[in-house]
Amino acid sequence: MSGHSSQSEPAYRILAPATLPDWLAGVGDMRALLGGRPVDWRVREVGDGNLNLVFIVEGPDASVCVKQALPYVRAAGPSWPMSPQRAYYENAYYRAVAPRVGALLPRIHHYDGDLYCTVMERLSPHVILRQGLIGRQRYPRLGRDVGQFVARACFFTSDLGQPMERKMEAMALFAGNSALVRISVDLIFTDPYAGSARNRHTSPQLDAVAAALRADAPLTGGAARCGWKFLTEAQALLHGDLHSGSLMVTAEDTRVIDPEFAFYGPIGFDLGAFLGNLLLNWYAQPGHGGGDACVGQRQWLLEQAAAFWESFRSCFLALWSETAGGDAFPAAAFARPADKAALDRARAALLDTLFADMQAFAACKMIRRIVGFAHVADFESIIDPGQRAAGEAGALALARWLLTAPEACASLAELQEAVQRFALDENPASWR
Amino acid sequence: MSGHSSQSEPAYRILAPATLPDWLAGVGDMRALLGGRPVDWRVREVGDGNLNLVFIVEGPDASVCVKQALPYVRAAGPSWPMSPQRAYYENAYYRAVAPRVGALLPRIHHYDGDLYCTVMERLSPHVILRQGLIGRQRYPRLGRDVGQFVARACFFTSDLGQPMERKMEAMALFAGNSALVRISVDLIFTDPYAGSARNRHTSPQLDAVAAALRADAPLTGGAARCGWKFLTEAQALLHGDLHSGSLMVTAEDTRVIDPEFAFYGPIGFDLGAFLGNLLLNWYAQPGHGGGDACVGQRQWLLEQAAAFWESFRSCFLALWSETAGGDAFPAAAFARPADKAALDRARAALLDTLFADMQAFAACKMIRRIVGFAHVADFESIIDPGQRAAGEAGALALARWLLTAPEACASLAELQEAVQRFALDENPASWR
Repeated sequence: MSGHSSQSEPAYRILAPATLPDWLAGVGDMRALLGGRPVDWRVREVGDGNLNLVFIVEGPDASVCVKQALPYVRAAGPSWPMSPQRAYYENAYYRAVAPRVGALLPRIHHYDGDLYCTVMERLSPHVILRQGLIGRQRYPRLGRDVGQFVARACFFTSDLGQPMERKMEAMALFAGNSALVRISVDLIFTDPYAGSARNRHTSPQLDAVAAALRADAPLTGGAARCGWKFLTEAQALLHGDLHSGSLMVTAEDTRVIDPEFAFYGPIGFDLGAFLGNLLLNWYAQPGHGGGDACVGQRQWLLEQAAAFWESFRSCFLALWSETAGGDAFPAAAFARPADKAALDRARAALLDTLFADMQAFAACKMIRRIVGFAHVADFESIIDPGQRAAGEAGALALARWLLTAPEACASLAELQEAVQRFALDENPASWR
Repeated sequence: MSGHSSQSEPAYRILAPATLPDWLAGVGDMRALLGGRPVDWRVREVGDGNLNLVFIVEGPDASVCVKQALPYVRAAGPSWPMSPQRAYYENAYYRAVAPRVGALLPRIHHYDGDLYCTVMERLSPHVILRQGLIGRQRYPRLGRDVGQFVARACFFTSDLGQPMERKMEAMALFAGNSALVRISVDLIFTDPYAGSARNRHTSPQLDAVAAALRADAPLTGGAARCGWKFLTEAQALLHGDLHSGSLMVTAEDTRVIDPEFAFYGPIGFDLGAFLGNLLLNWYAQPGHGGGDACVGQRQWLLEQAAAFWESFRSCFLALWSETAGGDAFPAAAFARPADKAALDRARAALLDTLFADMQAFAACKMIRRIVGFAHVADFESIIDPGQRAAGEAGALALARWLLTAPEACASLAELQEAVQRFALDENPASWR
C-alpha cells in the first residue's frame, strides 16, 4: 500500500562506519559533494535516540548526515523488533511539506528504500533545541519560525490548502504508519492514566502527586477526549512528534527533523507538542540554577510561547486569505463582499478551536513526560530529586487544570499568567 | 491501493438481459439456487438511478438481484465517463459492516471485481422507503431499525469498537473512494451556497426564498463548518448516502442498500441523512393531500424521528458499555469504580455532539435537495408548484434555523416542536 520494500527485503543491511563510505560513494553526487576518495571520509556514529543509527560523514569539501532506521529498538537490541518502515513515512513527510516550508527542514539528498536510510544535510553548528534550552541559550527566531512551520505544513496539507482528492490520497498513504501512531496512542493517551508498568516518576517525592493524578477521573476524561480527537480529527499532515528534541537551532536558523511519527491528525497536536515542551523547560528552569538568569530565561520562554502562537495564527490566516485551493470553506461559497464577515467569523472560530486543542494536547504531553514512560532531559538532568520533583509537580498542576477546565484560558496572555500561578518553586514544600 | 481492477481492464463488459444468464450460471451456486436452466431464467432491467444497471433474475426456485456499475453516468451516456470503481467500495462496505448489522443488509451472494457487479438477495416484497412514505405507508420498525443500524455500523468501525490499526487500514482503503466523496462535497456543501449553474428550485414560487438563502452569509458559514467536519472528522465508516432511497422496507423488515458513497467521516452525517429525509417527507405531506391522514402521517414521522435517535443513542451507549475493543476512551484508563462517572459524562458529551451534528447535517441535506442539483420525489411528485413550494419553504426555514442557531435544539422533543413551528402550509402565502 505504501510503496516501501518489505521488512524482510534481503537488500536491507545495517550500515557501519567501515561499510558506509562504499555505499555512499554510489549515491547520486555524493562523491562530488564530499570531495576526495571514500577512504578519506571520516565517519562517526552519533545517534543518541532509541531507534535509529545516525552517522556524520565528513569529506574534504563537505559533510552529510546519514540516518538509518534499525529493525529493532536500539536500546533493547534485536530481541525487541520494530519495523524500519517509519523511515519511509519520514521521507514521505519531508517530500510532502518541503515545497511549503523551504529552509525550515534539512535538505534531503537521497532516500534509499531498501536500507531505510536517508542522506541529508549535516546541520552545523546547530544544536538540539532541548540541549540549548537546558543550557539557557536563547534563539530569537524560535517561536516565530516554528509557528510558521506548523502553519505552512498544516495549511497546505489540510482541506483548506488542497483539493480533497489529494488530501485523501495522502491520508491513505500515512495511514500505513500505524505502528508509530500506536506508540503515541499508548504512551500519551493511555499509559499515564492506566497505571502501566512502563510508567515511572521521581520517587518518592512525586508518589502522592502521581497517585492523585491517576485517581483524578475528570482528568482521565479530559485526556480521553484528547485521545479521541487525536484518533479521529484528520485535519492536516502532522509531524507527530514536534518536541524540542525534534528541532535543531542556531541563533539565526531553525530546522525541524525526525518526522517519523507523521500522520493525518489534529493541528493542535503539533502545536501542543511544541508549546508543552517549552513549558516543561520553563518548569525545569529553577533546577538548573535560580536567580536573575532563571527569571530572565523563563520570561524569554513565555515570550517565545506567545510569539509561536501569534506567528502560527497570523501565518495560517494569511495563507487562508490568499489561497483558494481547498474544498473546506470553499471560496465559491463566500464570493460576495457580504460573505466576508461570516467567513472571518468562521476562521476566528476555527482558530479558537485550534488554540483550545493546543493547550489540551500540551497538557497531555507534559503529563506523559513526567509520569509516563519516556521522560525529558530538561527534568532528568536535574540532580536533586527534590528540586526536580518541585518543577514536575508545577507542570503537572498546570496540565491538570488545562485538561479539566478547558475553557479557562482563552488567550496566550492568560496562559502565561496561569503558568506562573502554578509554579511551586517558591514554596517547594506546598505540593507534598 | 484499493485492490480493484483498473477501469480499462479488458474483462469489463456491460451486461444485458440476453447475456446475463450465461455469466450468472458460472457464479458460485447460482444454478442450484435459481433452479432450472439459465435459458429459463427471466431477466428484467429495473434500474431507475443515475449510475447503475439493476437486474432482477427469476428462476423456477428463487430470484436474485444483480447490480452493475456503469463506466459512465447512465442518464448522460458514455460522453460523461465515471469510474465504476464505486462498486468495489460498496462491496467493501457490505463486507465491513455485515458481520455487525446482520439482517439489516441484503445478503450478498457474489462480487465480481472485473465486471464491478454484485449478485445479491432480491428483496421482495420490499419497496423503496421514499415511495412508501410518499404513499403514506407506515413501518413500525423503521426508526428503531435504522437507529440500530447506524449505531452498530458506526460503533464497530470507530476507534471505540476496534484497535486503531484496523481503523487506519480501513480508512486508507475507503480514502480511495474520493470520486464519490467529491460528489457529496460539491453537491451538499458547495453548490447550494455558491450559486452553481447545476442548482434549480421551484420557480418562480421559491425565487425570493432561494435568493435570500444564497445571500445569507451566516448560513453559508454554518454549512461550511459542516463541510469541514465532513472532510476532517474520520469517526467511523459511513454509508455516506443514507436517505430514504437507500432503504428497502416492509412493515416487518428494514434493509439498507447502496452504500457506494462509503468513507470514513462524522457519524452525524449518516444520522443527519436519515433524519433530514424524514423531515423532507414531513414538509411534503400536505402536497399529497391534507386532512386527518396528513396530520396522522406527520405525527408518525416525528415519532419515527424520535425512535430513530433514541434507538441509535441507546444502542451506541450499550455497545460502548459492553465492548472494550477500541483505543479511544481506553478501558484500561477507566478501570476504577470511581472512573465510571467521568466516563459516563464523557460518553454523554460525545452523544450530545453527535446529536448536534445530526441536526446540522440534516439541515445541509434538506437544503441541497430543495435548491441544489438533485431533488427528491417527496416534493417533485407534488404537481401544484405553489403547494410544493410551500412545503419546500418550510423545510428551508427549519434548515436555516438549525444551521445558524446550532445550540437551539438540545433534544429530539425540541426538534419536533421546531419542525411544526416552521411549517408554512397553514398560511402558504406568508413566506412569499
